[in-house]
Amino acid sequence: MVATGQLRAVRMGVDTHEEPIVFMRSDCAICHAEGFAANTRLQIHTGERNLIATLNMVSAALLPEGSIGFCESSWQYLHLQPEQLVRVRHTPLVHSLSALRKKIYGGELQALEISAIIRDIYHRLYSDIEIASFLTACAGERLSTAEVIALTRAMVGVGNRIRWPNYTRVFDKHCIGGLPGNRTTPIVIAIASAAGLVIPKTSSRAITSPAGTADTMEVLTEVDLSLEQLQRVVNETGACLAAGGRVGLSPTDEQLIRIERALDLDSEGQLVASVLSKKIAAGSTDVLIDMPLGPTAKLRSRAQAERLATLFRDAAAALQLRLRCVITDGSQAIGNGIGPTEEARDVLAVLQNRADAPADLLARALYLAAQLLVMQSGAEESDALAQARDILQTGRAWAQFQRICAAQGGLKEIVEAPHHTELRADRSGQLRGMDNRRLAQLAKLAGAPSSAAAGLRLRVKVGDTVIADQTLATLYADTVGELAYARDYFRENRDLFRIEGSV
Amino acid sequence: MVATGQLRAVRMGVDTHEEPIVFMRSDCAICHAEGFAANTRLQIHTGERNLIATLNMVSAALLPEGSIGFCESSWQYLHLQPEQLVRVRHTPLVHSLSALRKKIYGGELQALEISAIIRDIYHRLYSDIEIASFLTACAGERLSTAEVIALTRAMVGVGNRIRWPNYTRVFDKHCIGGLPGNRTTPIVIAIASAAGLVIPKTSSRAITSPAGTADTMEVLTEVDLSLEQLQRVVNETGACLAAGGRVGLSPTDEQLIRIERALDLDSEGQLVASVLSKKIAAGSTDVLIDMPLGPTAKLRSRAQAERLATLFRDAAAALQLRLRCVITDGSQAIGNGIGPTEEARDVLAVLQNRADAPADLLARALYLAAQLLVMQSGAEESDALAQARDILQTGRAWAQFQRICAAQGGLKEIVEAPHHTELRADRSGQLRGMDNRRLAQLAKLAGAPSSAAAGLRLRVKVGDTVIADQTLATLYADTVGELAYARDYFRENRDLFRIEGSV
Repeated sequence: MVATGQLRAVRMGVDTHEEPIVFMRSDCAICHAEGFAANTRLQIHTGERNLIATLNMVSAALLPEGSIGFCESSWQYLHLQPEQLVRVRHTPLVHSLSALRKKIYGGELQALEISAIIRDIYHRLYSDIEIASFLTACAGERLSTAEVIALTRAMVGVGNRIRWPNYTRVFDKHCIGGLPGNRTTPIVIAIASAAGLVIPKTSSRAITSPAGTADTMEVLTEVDLSLEQLQRVVNETGACLAAGGRVGLSPTDEQLIRIERALDLDSEGQLVASVLSKKIAAGSTDVLIDMPLGPTAKLRSRAQAERLATLFRDAAAALQLRLRCVITDGSQAIGNGIGPTEEARDVLAVLQNRADAPADLLARALYLAAQLLVMQSGAEESDALAQARDILQTGRAWAQFQRICAAQGGLKEIVEAPHHTELRADRSGQLRGMDNRRLAQLAKLAGAPSSAAAGLRLRVKVGDTVIADQTLATLYADTVGELAYARDYFRENRDLFRIEGSV
Repeated sequence: MVATGQLRAVRMGVDTHEEPIVFMRSDCAICHAEGFAANTRLQIHTGERNLIATLNMVSAALLPEGSIGFCESSWQYLHLQPEQLVRVRHTPLVHSLSALRKKIYGGELQALEISAIIRDIYHRLYSDIEIASFLTACAGERLSTAEVIALTRAMVGVGNRIRWPNYTRVFDKHCIGGLPGNRTTPIVIAIASAAGLVIPKTSSRAITSPAGTADTMEVLTEVDLSLEQLQRVVNETGACLAAGGRVGLSPTDEQLIRIERALDLDSEGQLVASVLSKKIAAGSTDVLIDMPLGPTAKLRSRAQAERLATLFRDAAAALQLRLRCVITDGSQAIGNGIGPTEEARDVLAVLQNRADAPADLLARALYLAAQLLVMQSGAEESDALAQARDILQTGRAWAQFQRICAAQGGLKEIVEAPHHTELRADRSGQLRGMDNRRLAQLAKLAGAPSSAAAGLRLRVKVGDTVIADQTLATLYADTVGELAYARDYFRENRDLFRIEGSV
């Protein structure tokens, strides 16, 4: 006998990605009594867990009477069993939405208002369009420093937090991105931890780029570590190179990033809060921020870079974090690979001191590793640079990288993409520039980062002389459709390689 | 034989409201070849129509091989037949999204950028979160006057436009809302058209209020008129009281309003563009704007009202429209009813010169009708007011209203709500105020406006002496669940009726 207001759970076999959807029959007695209709937002109770989901109405043929259907992500989130009884009611009023409206209309939010918004997002009370509205209202310098600090604290507050009782200083580094192929992190972490720094690195996956550090590292080893695994790896090796997701540090960040990614949006205040909340939750005391600056990078002007650096420093100071920002050259893509697998190839070439290692990636990695050594010891930059170079050239960095990968589950073999095509020059001349943003777009259209092997290998550098029909880059994809789609984009955007003058 | 890349259409029997969703099997060959996954946005071609939809993956049990499932709204939009062959591909790049990003980051948009955004929204190339982001980026005084003018022109540009070759002046009136029960329009239109003005009125449904004019008029007659029906009604009677939707005037407005409603958002620039685009598309030459001002109305301060009036006047002047703004008293709800049916009762009481007609609704309607008469003839306001009162008191307005309803399909009987409960005072004293916003919320929680009979009938006015347990209002709902939900809200918000002092 089913009690009033209860329904039997049915797994519908519908994958809606992350959006929680439930299905009820249009002739369902509960729908009628409660006034539920298509698109109503409902709260589902199982006794143990709650979920807010959007209702889709279905015909009688798709669902037995007295039951409610669940999409895959909702089924898993609620840990449901077939036929399990659940209760359904109207979503409670979400009080923090009035704070969201205040922000939309240009008001400054109090810390309590921001933490209420973040808590409600964490508890999945916000719909996707409400999250999109929140992110948009906070974009474009619309968050004050005080709001960024409050947002950071709120994001730390709803997740796990790692303690490192054995270490007094815990280092971290972060690149704000926008530069295709800029995969210095695995090299920097290997050098710094070989030098004795404790540096547990967790990275999120790509937001708007074709690969994040977590995507690249996943080509080489396991990155989805639990909190316990992560702590064991760091205690064994002094470092780790893990993805942030499963560790549960600043978990609302993942929810925000999902919508930022769909909007192709990456705003300043949100960026600072996202980075610092991850670092604080990870137990860091010292953080190096790499900020590439260039005409097609995320930072386009020195003034913009200085403003972001100031925001980072002010927020970090309020949050008792030692932080160093370095503005670096972001005028062209780093390394020769774009996309998880191709970037992993470049990383290995540098760590293994191979002759074909990209010189620019090598130089950047040494510079950043040296900055960390300066932060630790207060050494002169030139001495720190010599120390970093020595650690790399003597093979200690490569040995340390292998130790880290072994501790995380072993070093993997790189897998080739099943499809590729050459992108060729349509004229001869000097290669004067490449458009980072459109290069990234090209790799993403080919399937990066969700297809790890998808992406680009550049065959030329800015300054090279090229002749007509010469290969500029090789394009890789997992499927014929994606390869064709990306190639079509290249044909419409040949000027992303700026070839001028004569040979 | 099915050609490569074609799939057979299946009606899934899933109602997702307005959001276009298609379903494909996770083992589908096309998904694999093209790299489609859950949440990919796809373009569907039938040969005649195109649609952008979000993909949900389903298990083999739900869909035959080689087929694609459609939700109800997509099935209807594409005019599909069972087994019809369709083609599916990746969504083309939406170029106007770079203009959206410019706006998010605080840039001012050019007219061409705004028209590209509106055209792409019209062609359903924007996802719901992208529309939410656009609306948020434009909210809170973030649109310049030039942008509002461009937005208005762009919204007129993508829809139908009515021409009135027989009339040199075509009037219209609009209330910006925020005042529960402020249902003057049917009365004003009846008086003005009885006085000889040509005044074809189309209204959208409620955005954030418990009833719009279209919702209220739908209780009394047909409002979903085609363009031809609307023109016939106006030619017969000099007026109409129709819903805007089916006429296809400024159709993107409906798409924007759907998301504004979900976000409970109603921004200044968007409001002006929405109103003026409808008026221009309707062929109006003279427009009266009613702007209620009060502590809990949409306009809270004289300065805010003046700013909005200036924006309305500047935009109208640039668009060659004669426009008059009147700031009216919005300190309390008008009439005694809130919700479509209860507001319709008040309208009829005034038109029929009944003794129980709400005096405030009567006075406002006469004032606004007089303003239109002044606009037409340049008469003194006192003379115009006397003329309007005469038309109402002699029954000519009621006769004219009946003519309009008859031309639109006949006057309907009012239907009672199946459930109601009394909301009672918990103390004695003077009723010093009512909170318009929470009164509206209460009516919406009871089901208004989608349930026409849901809403409130107020039994007291500000200034009345009330005693404990006296009925303050009657609450109506279509379902027991909605009635309980609204009553719970009232219990938590008893102070929305501000009762102070002693009897």
